Amino acid sequence: MGGPRRLLLISNSTLHGGGYLGHCQQHIQKFLGQNVKRVLFIPYALHDRDAYARTARAKFESLGYGLDSIHEFCDPVEAVRKSEAIFIGGGNTFRLLKALYDNSLIHEIRKRVLEDGIPYMGSSAGTNVATISINTTNDMPIVYPPSLKALGLVPFNINPHYLDPDIKRTHMGETREERIRQYHEEPNTPPVLGLREGTMLLVEGDKATLQGVTGARLFLRGKKPTEHEPGTDFSFLLNDSNASNL
Amino acid sequence: MGGPRRLLLISNSTLHGGGYLGHCQQHIQKFLGQNVKRVLFIPYALHDRDAYARTARAKFESLGYGLDSIHEFCDPVEAVRKSEAIFIGGGNTFRLLKALYDNSLIHEIRKRVLEDGIPYMGSSAGTNVATISINTTNDMPIVYPPSLKALGLVPFNINPHYLDPDIKRTHMGETREERIRQYHEEPNTPPVLGLREGTMLLVEGDKATLQGVTGARLFLRGKKPTEHEPGTDFSFLLNDSNASNL
Repeated sequence: MGGPRRLLLISNSTLHGGGYLGHCQQHIQKFLGQNVKRVLFIPYALHDRDAYARTARAKFESLGYGLDSIHEFCDPVEAVRKSEAIFIGGGNTFRLLKALYDNSLIHEIRKRVLEDGIPYMGSSAGTNVATISINTTNDMPIVYPPSLKALGLVPFNINPHYLDPDIKRTHMGETREERIRQYHEEPNTPPVLGLREGTMLLVEGDKATLQGVTGARLFLRGKKPTEHEPGTDFSFLLNDSNASNL
Repeated sequence: MGGPRRLLLISNSTLHGGGYLGHCQQHIQKFLGQNVKRVLFIPYALHDRDAYARTARAKFESLGYGLDSIHEFCDPVEAVRKSEAIFIGGGNTFRLLKALYDNSLIHEIRKRVLEDGIPYMGSSAGTNVATISINTTNDMPIVYPPSLKALGLVPFNINPHYLDPDIKRTHMGETREERIRQYHEEPNTPPVLGLREGTMLLVEGDKATLQGVTGARLFLRGKKPTEHEPGTDFSFLLNDSNASNL
């Protein structure tokens, strides 16, 4: 097969007032195109995998694609080997990453996406695990994965569901920006792209572009965060040495 | 020394509109009493330990207690061995727990509190690490501790800064209650006590009492959550077999 890396990393599965994957369905269709016939779905982030697969199948079928859920295969590694495209859905990121390790899928998914060039879509937790690590997930650590290192399809971190501070709030838990700043207090931490709900990052080979409607906030260690509109070219984040030097 | 377990587990260090530990200072004074002269402070949850110790020292001195910060000792284990009382402050729970492991303090703190009966105070992250595990922290996993198991001074979990769902919100991230429900989808998970800001749990031997002003929400695996007013007797949560059976 072969081909450049192709990723669609979506902040959130459902936007307020819309249906499942409703806000990004045109991006998905454009991304998968006509050649892909079936998508391999990975539902590990939610407890009820059957119900989750039903929801995802209904949506993908309505867009003209067949969907196989990996939990219905005896051999998940083989399912990845044979897949034409992969979609990892949202839920709890710790649960998802642990299941990817438990099923020995990390290496095989990396190989299929980075070497064979099959399209990868992630939403929320599925976007988190596509990055270097899940260090910047918002989720509760309900299980303990063997590592926080993730698929590493891009050399930086993403914070999905990125949320601006609410100036009227009285709750004293840290804001999202404070949490990411705490991450950057640790040594050698890579850039973090805060993807607001309604936003996604499209990666085609060495080109990364911000899509959607709400924009993103970029956090580099030791620097002031910066705001970015839809359409921003984030290709520089794909440069490994950039990521580790920043 | 010897004596029953004594814990003051505070949801949050600062309440909106108040100063550091302002909302719980009378509880702290009553808890420590006249016999304790110096408190050992553990500032590991924040990056700037010197600044954090200054803040904590000023507060405790204003209440009539001396304060030593563990990061100023050459031998932290020895500092715990000689301590009269321990206070672990808030910040990032993952960073805190990792530092407790890195400094080989888990065993020694448990021994001082559970066998020798010295008073333990925790706030936010310091309350999280006092429980069975940090599985129900709200914090970002900015570092990877060798385990999520914590001090286990009580046989259940706490969710500090517990936050009720905001019915007006449009953000699609999981509510706190949904996150705790996801934790309880995992097998053999203990009770989770959601301590709202302004609330604390006082444990004296086998007696646990809810203090403060805002109340708590209790989550038991497979059951509907229940609301509890200040003054509630939570002693049944201290029963190990209860905790694992519930």
